[in-house]
Order: sequence, then C-alpha cells, then structure tokens
Amino acid sequence: MSEGVSGKLTELAKRRGYFFQSASAYGGVGGFYTFGPQGAALKGNVESAWRERFALEEGNMEIDAPTIMPEPVFEASGHLDTFDDMLVECPECGESHRADHIVEDNTKYEDAESLPIAEVEEIVAEYELVCPACGAGLAGQAIEDFNLMFATNIGPGDSQPGYLRPETAQGIFVEFARLKEYARNTLPFGVTQIGRAYRNEISPRRSIIRTREFTQAELEYFIDPEEDEPDLAAVEDVMVPLYPVDEQQADDGSAIETTIGEAVDEGIITDAWVAYYLGVAAEWYESVGVDMNRFRYRQHLAGERAHYAADCWDAESEIDSNWIEIAGFANRTDYDLSKHQAHSDERLTVFKQYDEPKTVERATVDPDMSYLGPEFGGDAGAVVDALETLAERDRAAFESDSVEIELEGEAHEIPAEKTGFSVEEQTEAGEHIVPHVIEPSFGVDRLVYTVLHHAYREDEVDGEARTYLELEPEVAPTFVGVFPLQSDDALEATAREVAASLRAAGLSVSYDDSGNIGRRYRRQDEIGTPFCVTVDYETIEETDDGGTVTVRERDSTAQTRLSVEELPETLSALRAGTLAFEELLEGVPTN
Amino acid sequence: MSEGVSGKLTELAKRRGYFFQSASAYGGVGGFYTFGPQGAALKGNVESAWRERFALEEGNMEIDAPTIMPEPVFEASGHLDTFDDMLVECPECGESHRADHIVEDNTKYEDAESLPIAEVEEIVAEYELVCPACGAGLAGQAIEDFNLMFATNIGPGDSQPGYLRPETAQGIFVEFARLKEYARNTLPFGVTQIGRAYRNEISPRRSIIRTREFTQAELEYFIDPEEDEPDLAAVEDVMVPLYPVDEQQADDGSAIETTIGEAVDEGIITDAWVAYYLGVAAEWYESVGVDMNRFRYRQHLAGERAHYAADCWDAESEIDSNWIEIAGFANRTDYDLSKHQAHSDERLTVFKQYDEPKTVERATVDPDMSYLGPEFGGDAGAVVDALETLAERDRAAFESDSVEIELEGEAHEIPAEKTGFSVEEQTEAGEHIVPHVIEPSFGVDRLVYTVLHHAYREDEVDGEARTYLELEPEVAPTFVGVFPLQSDDALEATAREVAASLRAAGLSVSYDDSGNIGRRYRRQDEIGTPFCVTVDYETIEETDDGGTVTVRERDSTAQTRLSVEELPETLSALRAGTLAFEELLEGVPTN
Repeated sequence: MSEGVSGKLTELAKRRGYFFQSASAYGGVGGFYTFGPQGAALKGNVESAWRERFALEEGNMEIDAPTIMPEPVFEASGHLDTFDDMLVECPECGESHRADHIVEDNTKYEDAESLPIAEVEEIVAEYELVCPACGAGLAGQAIEDFNLMFATNIGPGDSQPGYLRPETAQGIFVEFARLKEYARNTLPFGVTQIGRAYRNEISPRRSIIRTREFTQAELEYFIDPEEDEPDLAAVEDVMVPLYPVDEQQADDGSAIETTIGEAVDEGIITDAWVAYYLGVAAEWYESVGVDMNRFRYRQHLAGERAHYAADCWDAESEIDSNWIEIAGFANRTDYDLSKHQAHSDERLTVFKQYDEPKTVERATVDPDMSYLGPEFGGDAGAVVDALETLAERDRAAFESDSVEIELEGEAHEIPAEKTGFSVEEQTEAGEHIVPHVIEPSFGVDRLVYTVLHHAYREDEVDGEARTYLELEPEVAPTFVGVFPLQSDDALEATAREVAASLRAAGLSVSYDDSGNIGRRYRRQDEIGTPFCVTVDYETIEETDDGGTVTVRERDSTAQTRLSVEELPETLSALRAGTLAFEELLEGVPTN
Repeated sequence: MSEGVSGKLTELAKRRGYFFQSASAYGGVGGFYTFGPQGAALKGNVESAWRERFALEEGNMEIDAPTIMPEPVFEASGHLDTFDDMLVECPECGESHRADHIVEDNTKYEDAESLPIAEVEEIVAEYELVCPACGAGLAGQAIEDFNLMFATNIGPGDSQPGYLRPETAQGIFVEFARLKEYARNTLPFGVTQIGRAYRNEISPRRSIIRTREFTQAELEYFIDPEEDEPDLAAVEDVMVPLYPVDEQQADDGSAIETTIGEAVDEGIITDAWVAYYLGVAAEWYESVGVDMNRFRYRQHLAGERAHYAADCWDAESEIDSNWIEIAGFANRTDYDLSKHQAHSDERLTVFKQYDEPKTVERATVDPDMSYLGPEFGGDAGAVVDALETLAERDRAAFESDSVEIELEGEAHEIPAEKTGFSVEEQTEAGEHIVPHVIEPSFGVDRLVYTVLHHAYREDEVDGEARTYLELEPEVAPTFVGVFPLQSDDALEATAREVAASLRAAGLSVSYDDSGNIGRRYRRQDEIGTPFCVTVDYETIEETDDGGTVTVRERDSTAQTRLSVEELPETLSALRAGTLAFEELLEGVPTN
C-alpha cells in the first residue's frame, strides 16, 4: 500500500481541494503551497486539537507575535551566523543544490550536514558526484554557506534589515520579560504559538514536506532545572517506538517498543522533561490519526544535536518507505534566554525565592583612597577592582599585614589596614535564575501530510474500485454529508432542514444534491467524511416518529436507519467517541 | 469617557496581556505588535466568529495561501506600480513622513492621498509645512512614491523577487481556475481567507491601528453580474448609520440612520451586493461588541475610489473622536480576474449555460486565394483580415457584385464571388464570462482594538475606582474565573474540580488562587471576564444538593448562589444568551 501513495495523494489533494502548488497560473515557485477548502479545514482542525492539548489542557499561555523580526534578534539567536545550508551550484546548468543531500543520496555518509564544508567538498570530488539535474560533474565546485532566512527591509529611507522568522520560538524568547509577569514571576510556565515560519530552502521538494513557508506549533516551557519535575506518572505507561543512537549505529538496529516509564528507568531517554512530552505527543499523534505502526521517535546523533542541547529526539513518520521529521523535542537549556540577555541587556531571569531566607557571608573592601590615590595615581581604580575580586575569591589573602595584588603583570603590596576589608553577614531571600527551556516543536504541514498519507485507502465496493481517506472524525474537514436521494423539492427541503439541525448541533456539514447518490458517496469518501445521511421518501412519509434517514459509515460502507429527531444527538455521540457505529447496526439488516 | 481612553487602554493591554510592541528588548521596531495571552484569545475568538458568519453560515469556502508571492502576481494586480504612499524626508533630522498626512493634518485638504504629487509639493510650500518631528521646513523637499510592499528574494543564486502580500485577496484570485472547479463551475460562490498581510508603512502609528504586519479576513464573492442577486430581504430591516458622499460634502452633513432596504430604494447604496454585505456586517459587528453608536458606513469620495470600483463603503469606528477604517466593501467588478487572465494567459472564466441553446448567425468569408495571391501579393493576408472584419461588421457590404475594402488608406475593389462570403447558423450552449467580484474586507487587528476600546469602562465599586472591559461573552478571552475563597486545601481541590467541569462543558475557564478575592475580581474585570465563581465553605458543607457557589456578574457586580451541579448548564445558557443573569437574581438577596 505504501509505495507510490504520494503520487496518488498529490493528485487527490489537488482535485478535492486539500493542497496544490501556489500561483501555478504564473508557473509557480518551488516550496509554496495553498491549502484548498478541505486542506484549510483539516489544518485548522489539527491546530485546534494541538491547542486543546498543549495549551489549554496543560494550562499554558498562547501568544501571537509578528513573522517579521528585526536583525538584532537573529544576531542574538545565532540564526544570522549559523542558520545555513550547504549550497553547490552546477557549473553547467546553473541549478542550485544542497551539497549535503547529494552526498547523503549517493555515498555511505548519512549525516553530511554535520560535516565541515571542506570535507564535503572532498567527498564530492572523491565520489565524482554529479548534478542531479543535468549530470555534470560537481568535483571542484565551491560549496558555500547559504543563509536560509528570508531578508527584507523595514521602513523607508532609514530602513533597517528585518527577517521572516525561521521559527516561532524567537517571538516568545524576546518577550520573556513580559511573559513571566503574566505568569506572576513563577516557574514553571509554558508559552505556545501557532504560526507561520519561513526557510528559504535551496531545493524545496516532496510536496508540502519541505516548503519555504510553513506553519509551526511550538511550546516553550520554562523551568527551574533544579526544582521543577514533570508529571511523569501521567505518561509512564504510554507505549512509544524509540530509535536511540545505539540502535541507529548498530548494523541490525531498529526501533524498540517500550513505555516512557521504562525508557526513563533504563536511561534510554535521559531528560525527564523530554520524556514527558514524548509521552504526551505520542498519545496526541495517535488521536489525530497518525498510524503508530508508521511512527517512531529517533534520537539525534551527536553531530546533529545543537551544541546546547543535552538530548534531542525527533518524531518521525513513514511516508512511502522514507522517514520524515514531523516534530522535535529538545531541552534547550538556558541557551536562548542567556543569549538574548547578553545581547539586549534586558534581565531575562526569574527571582527564585528560597524556602527560608539564607544568611550568607560576603567579603567586601572599602579601600582608603587618600592612601591609594597618591600611591597609584591613575591606576588607583584598577587597584580597587583587583582588591574587590581578591576579597570575593580569597579571604585568607587579607589575614596578613600586607595584601599582594597583581596589576598588569606586576606585583604590588598594600597594607591590609588600608583595604577596609570586612566580612559581613547578609540575608538573601532568593536568587535570580535564568530558566531552562523545554521545547516540543511541531511541523503542522508535515503532520497534515502524514495524516492524509496514513489515512489513504483503496478498496472495492460492489465490484468498483474506491478510494477513501480514513480520517479521524476529530480532524476530518467535514463530519457528515447530507443528501436528498434524488432531485425533488420536498426531499431537498427536508435535507436542508436536516443539514441545518446538524450544523446547529456544532457538526461540520456538507449538503450535496448534485449527481447521483453513488457519486456523492464517492466524493465524500475521497474527502474523508466519516458519515453520510440520505433523505428519501421514507423520511418525509413516516410522520409518526418524524421520519427516518439512512446513515452510512465511510470505512465499512455499512448503513442503518435513524430517526431524524435523534440524529443530532446520535451523530454527536459518534463524533465524541461515546458511541460506536457498530452498536447502531445490531439487529438492523444492512442495505 | 472617550477622550484619552487610548492611553489607558494601551497601558492595560500591556499589563494584562492583550498586546504590546514587539521586541522592545531590542528597542522595538515601529508597526509590529505582539498579542499576549488575552489578546491572542480575543483575536482568535473574533476570527472564529467571522468564520462562522462569513464562511460557514454563508456557505463559502475557506482557503489558506502563502504570504510570500512571486513578482508576476503583483505586476498583474497593479501593486508593483501603484501601491505607493507619498514619502517626504526631513532635510534636517532625516525622519520619513507621509506627505499626504502632513497636508491633511495642517491644511483644509481632507483627501490629499488622491492628489497628484506635484500638487502636494505645492501645498507643502504654500502652507510652509514643517517636519512633525523636528520642526524644520519641508518646502522644496521632493516627495516620492514609496512602494508599500515588503520585498524579498526566493531561492539562492538564480533567485527571483517575491513580495509579502499586501492583501489576502490575491491568493484567491490567482487560484480562481482551480477554486471554480471546487465550486463545480457554478456561480455565484465565495472564497474566504483569514491571514497575515503586510504593508511597509512610512510612519506606522496609533498602536495596533496602523501596523506593518496585520491580519485580514476577506471574502471574495464571485458573481454573474447579469444574473445573480443577493438575498436583500434577509437584511432589509437592518438599521445602519450611513455617511454618504453628499453628507460628507455638505457643510452640516452627518451620518443618517436608515435601513438597508430604504437605502437601496432611495439609491443611497447603488450596488445591491454591497448593500447586502453592509447589512450582514452591521449585525455581525454588533454581535462581537462594536458600539453601534460609535460606528458608521462612510461612502468613498470620488478621488478615493479604486478606478474599477463603482461604489465603495468603509466601515468606520470612533476611537477617541477619530474615525478609523475597520473594513471595506467594494464591487471590484471583473478587474482582478481580467488582469490576471491577461497576464497569466490562464482562462479565468466560468462557462455560463444558456437556459436554452441559442442559434446565432455568423457571417464568415473564405476568400479565393488563387485570385487574391496574384492580385495583392504580400498584402493578401491583410486583405483576408479586412474581409473578415467587414463580414462581422457589415453584411450588407457583400450584397453587391464587388466589395470595397481599405488597405493602408487605399480603397480596393474585390469581386464578391471571390470572397467566399456566407452566413451560417451556429448553436451555442452558453458563453464564457469573467465573473465580477464583491469584496467585504475586514481588518482584524483594528476590530480587536475597537472592541477593546468600546468595551473600556471605569466605575466605582464599594467606594473604590474600578476598570473593566464590557466584552461580549462570545469574544471574551476567558468566560469564567473560578476561585477558592481563601487558601485552604479543601476549597482549592473543590474549586479545581468545578473549573474542570466547566472546561468539560466547553467553556473558557481561568482558575486563580493568588492574592485576595477582591484582587482576583479586579483582575478578571480588567481582562473582561463576564462571570466569576467562588468556592467557599458552603460549597463543601452543603452536601445534600452538592453544595452551592457564588456567581458574580462582571458589569453589575451582582452576585447569586447556584448549585455546583447545575453550574455548567446555567453558565452555558448565559454564554449562549438563552438566559439572562438578571433572571437568576429574582428573589435572591444580593451580597
């Protein structure tokens, strides 16, 4: 089933309004896709489900920051210097390629991205690698760092450089000073954001898997690393397929099925916070329709890891025998806040109150300037600094009659009595700490693609080939299709009433009276609508109980009859999962 | 009340998490704002309410297109050439300003934007206008057209120019060929989009009123202008304050209160489709909390109107005695689709089937080239063209023996028998038409600002000054706050249970146990939370009926007691508007 589904899915996605390349009237541009009516609804439902789980249920705050940010933000974050891919241009056809991808696709090297450029250039020469577009040799071509941020200018005349954010996270970090106030200066707390992010990919490819504009759903969870612990008990029994480093490096390695609890106990996942979110995310992924037999968590290899991150795992889904990254889970430590604190001179700390005030001894000096001034002249200030540093480091140095300091490599003796040295007791209520950040970061477009790919089915109904999407009711763009059996004013009027009553019950409804009933079923099957309701003459004749309609289930194509009156409640129960369609079939002859 | 609310609102918005200038840790950049937790929730609720009314209820499709679009799109749309503001730079301080704003603020000219640049330069000189920043004279300074699109480059090396879209609409127009298929090639149909748009404003100002990055909610409704008519009956009784051109130009003109039906009958609104959406939008604006006494529809003056638009109206709200545009309603005719059709060579038409096939007579020629060739040589082709044109225009010319044509100003006679003239009957099932577009275009940020501004209240409670936001329950970020009366494990546990039961009922809940109860009320008042529930000792003691809680209403601060059991149902009814809080007070002594 899996091989080749991507091509069929792309065709279905275009025809049925899930997604398609943007601006194809103008030839299109690589890496930009538009979500059609079905795709926008599916994506919106996935975002709502994420918000429900990662913001509301976890009690986190959601914010909405601009996508354009000024340059100093990315100087601090490091994106301006290091957010690069390896660019190689073909000397013959001029096409641009990612050098690391060419190496990975054609050699034994699996993680070329982490190699130095010079080494990649050597590999290209050694293996005589060629341009994937025209076949010309690439040996000797210079490989360059290409920054992936889209640049623009803000304002006229005195304009300043700005960039489209490469991740939503920075919009949270730079506002930390204010966000901590909303959290009443108390750790831990989390801030989420769902929004656009941009990467000027050298060679975008594979449909909506690697695009230049995409949607992220990110949670930045700020903790006190010494105090805060996750509620691991809540996820300890969650089964997860883990693909740790040693399995990746073993000749016959493979993902192992285990629970979060065991993985933490056995040291496979070393960070408890990362483990917690891997558990929460596994359950959530399953709830929105990811096939957990085509899902794994892969640990980052040493070379892949950001230098600040102690342990990183990616969520990966299987698409036509390839594994693609759909989320990343990392402990970013205090890296981001420390960087922004240093660059912005804003205090990005939280005051951590001690359980009881601590009494600490502080050694200080109060030098006699009437002695130091004449003695050291312009260097007197430097002497004071040296004495202060010495007092903090080495109190014993002040115990003898004279204190030795070093000034520009030269030793000086100062009478201890002139230093004003003393040790004082101070009471401290707490300290200012830079929080650490745990980041689960989800790619929404890739998840939408995975959900569609894993839902794609082909079967045969009444001797005819059928394609349908087995989407979870929670995310399906339409929950129920409502049809009049045939073209008839009375049937159509009743069908419209039924549709309105279901809409009023909060269900997503599609009314359709075009073509024959078989074609309408196939259309809804291809869109992935879980149920269809057909209004026929029995509906408008049986006036005693308000009439009945046919209800058909998408996957089994089984049908039953339900009274119009109880329809909203029954369908709502099916959507909520408190009722299974099979229960409605008991004792009912299927049509 | 109105004067000066903006300043207080900005302070409240920052302190309570509605909105604040972005990246202020780095000094900030004009025109970029971040929505904090409350603001993001309010904005999300406003967007959901818009989607509910303008997409779902109207049966329109929603799509989600990229914010970066390639250059040819904006060559076609005209944005590259004409989407400019008048830029003047101060010769002293170097600050950039909008010349039209300086003129409007300091002269009798009200619509300087529509004047030619040369005339604005003359006015600046004549009135001796000065730099608003430093006071230097601006006379003689060149005024330039400054394009408001943010430019960037897509891809490496062989990169192509791209722009951040200045309106979401273009992402709909360029996909028309595909979207019409989703609508089964049948007019009328509508496509909506909610998303970011960007304008590189010369001088962004007034908080989130004029920003460089903002959110639009747009509907493009495609119609056959000869056939399709709106359901005016549905909105004919809606009262609207209209400020038409003649009232704007009269010395003592003012907005007039009338109904949509009367305004159409009296020719005040000339376009029925525009009238329909003005009616729908007025009801919707009121439902999300716009004060209709501080709202009007203002007709565009002749100079303001886009050249293609027959009649345009803006929705405007009053903010501290200024009127700001919060939406635009225009009949864009076939301007956009025709432009894109011409530039992209893609067919952006809909086939309009006639009720019955039409038989039409077509006059054609089939000239005898063995005669024309020797006679006219290289001009033979031009003769054929001339004959074809003549046949279409003037059949009578072929009735005599010879036919006269003109070729480069010279008359030629051609024997009628050599022209192969004939009149044939053709049957046509329909024709290809370029649809017209009706566009209601909403600014979401400005609406959020209006809703907050119109909800801002100050009063006195128990002798203390109070600030609260009288937000509609449908859009308020939090619907109910839940508190334990005081710090007590049993109270807190019960309060958390109550909060969970309300969340399960689909309500937006904030649990708060910090500070005293009075401070918690004030916090929720300032955020605009309609109801607060307090759990006290009566709640956990009265075990017979499951205990009662205090429910307090925001605006009146009136309180009543309700049983915990019926709380979810009662609060849901209050939110849905099927129950008024006053009904709960009957016979209950207020605390």
